[in-house]
Amino acid sequence: MIFLTRRTTFSASHYYWNPAWTEERNVQVFGRCANRNGHGHNYTLEVTAVGDPDPVTGFVVDLKWLKDVIEREVLATFDHRHLNLEVPEFMASETAATIPTTENIAIAAWNRLEPSVTAAGGARLSCVRVYETPEIFAEYQGGL
Amino acid sequence: MIFLTRRTTFSASHYYWNPAWTEERNVQVFGRCANRNGHGHNYTLEVTAVGDPDPVTGFVVDLKWLKDVIEREVLATFDHRHLNLEVPEFMASETAATIPTTENIAIAAWNRLEPSVTAAGGARLSCVRVYETPEIFAEYQGGL
Amino acid sequence: MIFLTRRTTFSASHYYWNPAWTEERNVQVFGRCANRNGHGHNYTLEVTAVGDPDPVTGFVVDLKWLKDVIEREVLATFDHRHLNLEVPEFMASETAATIPTTENIAIAAWNRLEPSVTAAGGARLSCVRVYETPEIFAEYQGGL
Amino acid sequence: MIFLTRRTTFSASHYYWNPAWTEERNVQVFGRCANRNGHGHNYTLEVTAVGDPDPVTGFVVDLKWLKDVIEREVLATFDHRHLNLEVPEFMASETAATIPTTENIAIAAWNRLEPSVTAAGGARLSCVRVYETPEIFAEYQGGL
Amino acid sequence: MIFLTRRTTFSASHYYWNPAWTEERNVQVFGRCANRNGHGHNYTLEVTAVGDPDPVTGFVVDLKWLKDVIEREVLATFDHRHLNLEVPEFMASETAATIPTTENIAIAAWNRLEPSVTAAGGARLSCVRVYETPEIFAEYQGGL
Amino acid sequence: MIFLTRRTTFSASHYYWNPAWTEERNVQVFGRCANRNGHGHNYTLEVTAVGDPDPVTGFVVDLKWLKDVIEREVLATFDHRHLNLEVPEFMASETAATIPTTENIAIAAWNRLEPSVTAAGGARLSCVRVYETPEIFAEYQGGL
Repeated sequence: MIFLTRRTTFSASHYYWNPAWTEERNVQVFGRCANRNGHGHNYTLEVTAVGDPDPVTGFVVDLKWLKDVIEREVLATFDHRHLNLEVPEFMASETAATIPTTENIAIAAWNRLEPSVTAAGGARLSCVRVYETPEIFAEYQGGL
Repeated sequence: MIFLTRRTTFSASHYYWNPAWTEERNVQVFGRCANRNGHGHNYTLEVTAVGDPDPVTGFVVDLKWLKDVIEREVLATFDHRHLNLEVPEFMASETAATIPTTENIAIAAWNRLEPSVTAAGGARLSCVRVYETPEIFAEYQGGL
Repeated sequence: MIFLTRRTTFSASHYYWNPAWTEERNVQVFGRCANRNGHGHNYTLEVTAVGDPDPVTGFVVDLKWLKDVIEREVLATFDHRHLNLEVPEFMASETAATIPTTENIAIAAWNRLEPSVTAAGGARLSCVRVYETPEIFAEYQGGL
Repeated sequence: MIFLTRRTTFSASHYYWNPAWTEERNVQVFGRCANRNGHGHNYTLEVTAVGDPDPVTGFVVDLKWLKDVIEREVLATFDHRHLNLEVPEFMASETAATIPTTENIAIAAWNRLEPSVTAAGGARLSCVRVYETPEIFAEYQGGL
Repeated sequence: MIFLTRRTTFSASHYYWNPAWTEERNVQVFGRCANRNGHGHNYTLEVTAVGDPDPVTGFVVDLKWLKDVIEREVLATFDHRHLNLEVPEFMASETAATIPTTENIAIAAWNRLEPSVTAAGGARLSCVRVYETPEIFAEYQGGL
Repeated sequence: MIFLTRRTTFSASHYYWNPAWTEERNVQVFGRCANRNGHGHNYTLEVTAVGDPDPVTGFVVDLKWLKDVIEREVLATFDHRHLNLEVPEFMASETAATIPTTENIAIAAWNRLEPSVTAAGGARLSCVRVYETPEIFAEYQGGL
């Protein structure tokens, strides 16, 4: 089995805000990230598929196909967007929100990618790694 | 003469929008960057001073001092902020705005840093380079 | 147990071409990579050994020795070479070929390195990771 | 489960020297690293915690807290220090020493970090990776 | 004046061979690069324009336009190609050749880009930098 | 004219200490860098030559030759060494020292390289850039 990874990037805004909390509590827990004007990052997204290389093509997956899946399922919604205001997974209700932390972005990307990779047969989705900066990254391996 | 550079980073949101234009014109010129929810980047800021090393300390400038100047004059205002909404240089009037392009961010950083470096005597500010992503960067050399 | 990795690089040419297919089919599947004049990459090769550090030297493996093994077993054959024309694992017969994809290069490097690492006793070969570009990499973990 | 990583750096000196050996034997095994004046590196330290994101904060661990733990438990002792002369794990007796190899630095960092991460409850320490240079790195996963 | 740079990459094969020389002489001067099967690199191409930011758009040049120019004038011919066999500047006659060194690739890219940038008015082409590897790069500044 | 650069690395220890000052004054000015056990860095050294490419070879300088010059004149003395204790430019007398700051290392490297490059004829030495870390670098352009 081979683990094959495609790295892409996207630029997005976000903030950390729990609508069930007071402003004071949000600032206490989230610090500068609680600024509701938003701030942003160049995110790096690494998507890893695992399987045996096809003996005819030498491909675990066709990387052009994988890049198209990543663009359609993730980048089209996340890139040049405000995660809290435009990405459904992170839009808050009046009382709750899934905060767009690096951890939750990795889960959201996995959930968006897994059905397409599974439906294609062959390789399985192995993990999704998201870098918020070169110093901070989160990795999700699905059902592990 | 030695050119001495200190690199720092900051994360910010921005959008490109000319208030004198229609929405259609803004989208035509600025594309995805015209999304007024904003998107963001991890900016890299390189600040270069030039001068002769002090024969006693070996310093063109004290890099701890230079880092403090960068943090006070630029990062305190730019980091984890929305450039269009919170940084005076880029706040729009009803009819005009200085768009926070990489070019204009470099000029703004220069204008914020130059008085402190000049006032300290010794080294001069030589250039300011701003990376929006690793693929796009702008450099300003002041009065050149 | 500690995983210890040595990263090296090599520059090589390759193309993707299945001799059992028509030219049309090769271009359809492999796109620009089917150009038989070849194109090339700066590959990065990461070789990971796993074991307990020797209590006297602190080494899982002697990295000078590991680098020599990598150079003798892989780089001497792959670096500044055309993978399809000069590396036995990827030379095509008239009807079949192992395509030098990133996946297959990782397997070939593992198969070249594993006997020397195993014969030395002590640490085992844990994985081989090959980057074709910073955006594309494959990892092979042997019998996993 | 999500693996969340915080990367930091530190600069330190070290040498490789086994006090039970002759100088000749030290140079034979450790080469240029046996120079007792010391040489140094910009080390990169990646600390990975694993757990489920808190449903309220979206955090596996609070990265500000984790960074404080890393600074207090590791960087305060390792950064701008001579590992052999100032870090207890690597100070030699007259007849023995734990050599500050990349492998042993990773183990030392794990042992310094694990109690604080475990005591905090929630996420567990998953692995510690230390880069001596971009070409050489060691990863320790605790009791694995 | 602001210097604005767009970085792109391309992958290509090449070899170093002077048709006026014997094979022995080619190998003596060019070493492993004289292997006529070719070897390859991931080249990085940085194109810098210089000018004043447009007061309305904040652009020295429109980076989408500049990227299109780079793709049309350089990448369409150089990417996934064999420089000696497919790029006119480097095709050898029986007695002479312009060797596709990093230096000559930078000059060729400048000569391909300069007319389009100049014809557009506004910013001038300032320099072209080509990285063959992260360790080797050449910069050309036109008529300097 | 083309600017051609070769990047290399070396690992060394150093400290900042002015023997004409009290310990208190050294710590006040140099902070943690005044620790006389030393600390270290992975330095990056970029050496740039400038000239016209030779019409026959396409070389501004032969990069193999330039790398040999860098290794003989700089790395053989600086790599895996303690700059203050083993490199003549930085050895202190009882009352004075040239502090091995990034600035002074760049000057020392220039002075070591310039005679060999000049003696070879053809290209001139254009600049030397030294990175102490990715965040701090100094550039010297000789007689500028």
